[in-house]
Amino acid sequence: MTELRFTKGHGTGNDFVLVADPDGDVVLAPSDVARLCDRRFGIGADGLLRAVRVAAEPLAGDADAEWFMDYRNADGSVAEMCGNGIRVFTAFLLAEGLAEIPAGGSLPIATRGGIVTVQRTATGFAADLGGWTFGADDVAVRIAGVDVVRPGLAVDVPNPHVVVALGDDAELAAADLSTGPVLDPPPVAGANVELVRPEDPLVEDGIGRIRMRVHERGSGETLSCGTGAVAAALATRYWAGPSAPDDWRVTVPGGVLGVRVFRAEDGEHVSLSGPAELVYTGVTEL
Amino acid sequence: MTELRFTKGHGTGNDFVLVADPDGDVVLAPSDVARLCDRRFGIGADGLLRAVRVAAEPLAGDADAEWFMDYRNADGSVAEMCGNGIRVFTAFLLAEGLAEIPAGGSLPIATRGGIVTVQRTATGFAADLGGWTFGADDVAVRIAGVDVVRPGLAVDVPNPHVVVALGDDAELAAADLSTGPVLDPPPVAGANVELVRPEDPLVEDGIGRIRMRVHERGSGETLSCGTGAVAAALATRYWAGPSAPDDWRVTVPGGVLGVRVFRAEDGEHVSLSGPAELVYTGVTEL
Repeated sequence: MTELRFTKGHGTGNDFVLVADPDGDVVLAPSDVARLCDRRFGIGADGLLRAVRVAAEPLAGDADAEWFMDYRNADGSVAEMCGNGIRVFTAFLLAEGLAEIPAGGSLPIATRGGIVTVQRTATGFAADLGGWTFGADDVAVRIAGVDVVRPGLAVDVPNPHVVVALGDDAELAAADLSTGPVLDPPPVAGANVELVRPEDPLVEDGIGRIRMRVHERGSGETLSCGTGAVAAALATRYWAGPSAPDDWRVTVPGGVLGVRVFRAEDGEHVSLSGPAELVYTGVTEL
Repeated sequence: MTELRFTKGHGTGNDFVLVADPDGDVVLAPSDVARLCDRRFGIGADGLLRAVRVAAEPLAGDADAEWFMDYRNADGSVAEMCGNGIRVFTAFLLAEGLAEIPAGGSLPIATRGGIVTVQRTATGFAADLGGWTFGADDVAVRIAGVDVVRPGLAVDVPNPHVVVALGDDAELAAADLSTGPVLDPPPVAGANVELVRPEDPLVEDGIGRIRMRVHERGSGETLSCGTGAVAAALATRYWAGPSAPDDWRVTVPGGVLGVRVFRAEDGEHVSLSGPAELVYTGVTEL
């Protein structure tokens, strides 16, 4: 048996087991991760984030960052990036004294999806998720509990999403996400589906405001999906036309996220901001 | 902010946050408990078990035991007893060095439901749950996914249960417990409902063997319910007639429990045995 020290944290209810492994000594088989993430028999989480130095992690290649975020899903499979996870990961690095973000500066973090740059915000952290692409054609979306088939906009950020504007607030409440919405044509690798409603008014003080619920591939309805909030804001901004703002506030069941569109050297980028809470530290056996 | 040290453990998947509070210094408001038991924003558990010395806890009265188990449900409300929880509580007391069970002896634990006596077994612990009563008349039980209305036997141990024998294994698998079974007449305070199937053969080496699924009041389908396993074994023993064994093995989704009927000084008692696992220790802020 090996002692494993960990921290548990969440971002808008999307929760993670965090493990500091500077020198790449911790071997976590998929079955270990699945056991640790089990909510009854283990610690319980949506995923596990291992913090390993780029220099000690072959997976990280020659990324220009000190830390690599080894992100595993709750079933033990690997994942590229997680919009909520990277904030919690950053809060963990800072709390452990493993990294610093200088005033007005940023921290590059290597992920399987490339380098992600994180900055401090008033309420947490913001991560630059890079560019995005819209699908060319509408997707027909059939949602249990919603009488009409509604058109959805495909958004890759870069993981695949389909965003659907619902007719009214009652429809958002009535939607039954215990089963996944049916998409036509079906995306090759599936997609997360965001159901969106504008706040009233949609724009206040220059900030666009929406509420959403999300169905995640393989997970069902969740309290929050970071890239889903980004996709939802981008789609609503697109629908709202050229006068739409670049700043968005997205209310998910687990809290509030911020989405910002800005111009970077290589074109338009989108960033996701929100809180990151470290809830407890623990020790278990592997 | 106060530092709270805790241990997380489970018995057949029924999981608990355990807090050692020998001198009764830890004040846990219902809202604290609810936050700690939240599976995304807190630690996550079915309930919280606080270990306080009887001498330091007014709730315990003058119970003839050293330790009182202050059991709270995940929503912060108080509860009398928990068949799985008391084993995990005992494992915690032993691991913390707060109590001992002498070889061949037992440990009395004060609960809101009275004194419960716990013994060691080969695979964990056994708790004497005292006597039980059967309802006089069958209850008609309507279960989603099951075509026929089936008769159920009410069993109080002492919390209320209704046990239903299903027609075949396919029916046990098909039963939809995402909604609670409808009971007629409805019990005043509701009841947990156990769906039971015999193994083949029912009795082997003198041990009765059943499988069950359970719907708990207020919780929905769960991986395990200790008193539910007791009720299921008692009902099956009753249906099997005078030749039925006193020892039962009950397979629940989260593991295997043992149920034994024995004669005590004040009449027939039933005990529940099974594993108790301590998974990790942690520190959080209150």
